[in-house]
Amino acid sequence: MPWNGRHFLSLTELSKADMIGLMRRASHFFDAGDRYEPSAPLAGKVVANLFMENSTRTRCSFTIATKRLGGDCIDVLGSTSSASKGETLVDTALNLEAMGVAGIGVRCSEERGPWEIAQHVGVPVINAGSGTTAHPTQALLDAVTLTRYFGKEDLSGEHIAIVGDIAHSRVARSNIVGLTTLGATVTIVGPAELLPEDLGCTTSTDFDSVLTEVSACMMLRVQFERNATIDEDYREHFGLTEARAKNYSGAIMHPGPINRGLEIDDRVANVESSPHNLILSQVTSGVATRMAILEHLIG
Amino acid sequence: MPWNGRHFLSLTELSKADMIGLMRRASHFFDAGDRYEPSAPLAGKVVANLFMENSTRTRCSFTIATKRLGGDCIDVLGSTSSASKGETLVDTALNLEAMGVAGIGVRCSEERGPWEIAQHVGVPVINAGSGTTAHPTQALLDAVTLTRYFGKEDLSGEHIAIVGDIAHSRVARSNIVGLTTLGATVTIVGPAELLPEDLGCTTSTDFDSVLTEVSACMMLRVQFERNATIDEDYREHFGLTEARAKNYSGAIMHPGPINRGLEIDDRVANVESSPHNLILSQVTSGVATRMAILEHLIG
Amino acid sequence: MPWNGRHFLSLTELSKADMIGLMRRASHFFDAGDRYEPSAPLAGKVVANLFMENSTRTRCSFTIATKRLGGDCIDVLGSTSSASKGETLVDTALNLEAMGVAGIGVRCSEERGPWEIAQHVGVPVINAGSGTTAHPTQALLDAVTLTRYFGKEDLSGEHIAIVGDIAHSRVARSNIVGLTTLGATVTIVGPAELLPEDLGCTTSTDFDSVLTEVSACMMLRVQFERNATIDEDYREHFGLTEARAKNYSGAIMHPGPINRGLEIDDRVANVESSPHNLILSQVTSGVATRMAILEHLIG
Repeated sequence: MPWNGRHFLSLTELSKADMIGLMRRASHFFDAGDRYEPSAPLAGKVVANLFMENSTRTRCSFTIATKRLGGDCIDVLGSTSSASKGETLVDTALNLEAMGVAGIGVRCSEERGPWEIAQHVGVPVINAGSGTTAHPTQALLDAVTLTRYFGKEDLSGEHIAIVGDIAHSRVARSNIVGLTTLGATVTIVGPAELLPEDLGCTTSTDFDSVLTEVSACMMLRVQFERNATIDEDYREHFGLTEARAKNYSGAIMHPGPINRGLEIDDRVANVESSPHNLILSQVTSGVATRMAILEHLIG
Repeated sequence: MPWNGRHFLSLTELSKADMIGLMRRASHFFDAGDRYEPSAPLAGKVVANLFMENSTRTRCSFTIATKRLGGDCIDVLGSTSSASKGETLVDTALNLEAMGVAGIGVRCSEERGPWEIAQHVGVPVINAGSGTTAHPTQALLDAVTLTRYFGKEDLSGEHIAIVGDIAHSRVARSNIVGLTTLGATVTIVGPAELLPEDLGCTTSTDFDSVLTEVSACMMLRVQFERNATIDEDYREHFGLTEARAKNYSGAIMHPGPINRGLEIDDRVANVESSPHNLILSQVTSGVATRMAILEHLIG
Repeated sequence: MPWNGRHFLSLTELSKADMIGLMRRASHFFDAGDRYEPSAPLAGKVVANLFMENSTRTRCSFTIATKRLGGDCIDVLGSTSSASKGETLVDTALNLEAMGVAGIGVRCSEERGPWEIAQHVGVPVINAGSGTTAHPTQALLDAVTLTRYFGKEDLSGEHIAIVGDIAHSRVARSNIVGLTTLGATVTIVGPAELLPEDLGCTTSTDFDSVLTEVSACMMLRVQFERNATIDEDYREHFGLTEARAKNYSGAIMHPGPINRGLEIDDRVANVESSPHNLILSQVTSGVATRMAILEHLIG
């Protein structure tokens, strides 16, 4: 089913052309820097951040993106909301719609939360991270970052590794879809117990071997907050250590927040360590990408 | 003592004419939809949400109302404020006034909190829910919803039931005052242990019997967060079950958040189930009503 | 090293002329009241409040100051941020910078937190309270309050007491620096166990004796949240009781939040009790002072 452009729930629905359309607009916003848009397509509109899980990056990114488009955000956070009184996610969303919000960004632990909301409300719903199923705005911003880095919109011929706690990672799932749509080859790497076999791409437990073949490497956060358990030698086998980084000249990415010294060594994580370290560029792309999505759905 | 229009603390002070004046303005804002007011009577003003208890609906409603009038809100929430350092509510309010806020919306567990603040500060104070004493903006928005539903400003001849955990309900207390002022007859219904005798209206423990006589029915949340305890057969006796709803054709209301399957059955709670289900209309009225109040006090 | 005007980390770097420059501008904003600046030097800019410790006063003060200059704030609070996932303070700040914020106000328990951030980010950093080291915006607003009270910019000849829990007080530390720079003599007063000897000013455990000599008295909060422990007779020896206040005609200050009945008696704390009670004037100065700082660094 082709994307109808009403909601932004996962990359699965988007064609390559859909993705590239949004990515071009995001790249425009990236180049425009932190200046507000004179046209202000969201002027007078309030977008709800319905974030039931803690987040700095994504919530601030949505808020700043909204403000730069002339709109305003209202935060509905798990810890201070009526969810603590047992209200369902859909009921909270219906209430926000009834208050006149122009759209709802949703982060939740429910795997299908954003889809359920989208079935019930008439305003655009943006998936800002749902359980372990999807984090499509992250994958789109990663694609923006990579296409800017490679200087081409089509990623055919690129081989990209996603490394670490794949099992708990919605970022990995959405990136597999997005990168594949753009033509890249994806290999997921991690310890066997964190490496699902059913994600439709090559798997490997041999990071060093994969590292010699890829032009970009997305290091994932070990999600202790989702009860990830790792062996003592995790860093040794799956961390982007200084030793490994020395022999690697591709792009280095991480969706944050970083466990420094675990999935990535302290110095390797520092963005000034290498022109191929794209970690903060991802964050800047994040605002630009959410601007493109918000403008498309709500503007 | 007639209402002086400086604060909005309870409906007790308001005459029928005071109420209807605000309700007409709210109804205008309701019809205007979610567009910002071009006149922007709150432009350049900051209103404080001093919310010591968790809330989604009311806090967001005040914030959106303020933004639609051109102003801006600042949230001071219990969990992240200096209340956790033992500051008194009045001192917090005095500080906000000294910072130049144009008004203060107060939600607190103290029964007389908003009145105490109003005695000490010079800016308008709006009671956004105090202990079990009053929730006057909720009652005014309920009156707006009902008068729009009935198509008349005077509720004489209407008999309205308020059902459930009356004991813990500031919503019930304010609605008894508001509905009576507008001419309606009110019966409160609930299990004997949750049914105070001193609220100045008829009481009943026989929901089915009352349901045959009323044209509107406000179902209340069982407030477990205030340690409400109920019998196992609560839903059977006091829930608006599907069976009961089938034989009832009046308006259905609920201030939210809903305990679905307890005070109201799942399907009956769904707004699409019936044109008489006003639950989300209440939420839309909420923003419009708070706009009317904010404009009157601060604009 | 002279102040370069890029960050606002402590008063140690500021010359008397630097301080007076900012204070004059703050005083202008104080007199202008709560009206927005027509020039709006922060229009289109987003300032981050990176507050890892609870705060009402300072966070709201920064937010209102930013709004009055035409800008907007985004809150990143400890309890709802990625700090709960172990992200470092510097990484959070780098992320905010990458999102395009125009400046970062930092409150943290780390003694050198704001300095560390300032070493890594390119946008202005404002210390909004760091561990027990410094709270320079508080000290500058206290100086604004006092110079307005005394009617002179130079505090030579004035003797000022800072009283109470000096050990845990970043307010005391910054005020010692600021007041001394402006020419005042400072005596710190408190129980021996809360009275550091190495702060470069006279110490005393005899409050009554000091009170006869000073023209202003800053009462400090006993910081139980930092595990301050006090003797039963604390109020008797170091509280500004009604009895003491009766024989004292100088200025009374407190940075808030107040433990009423401990460091200051209930009636003495009430601002209407005396024209020399400057406690709420400090709060108003706070917004004006942060406006001056924000305008200088970011405007």
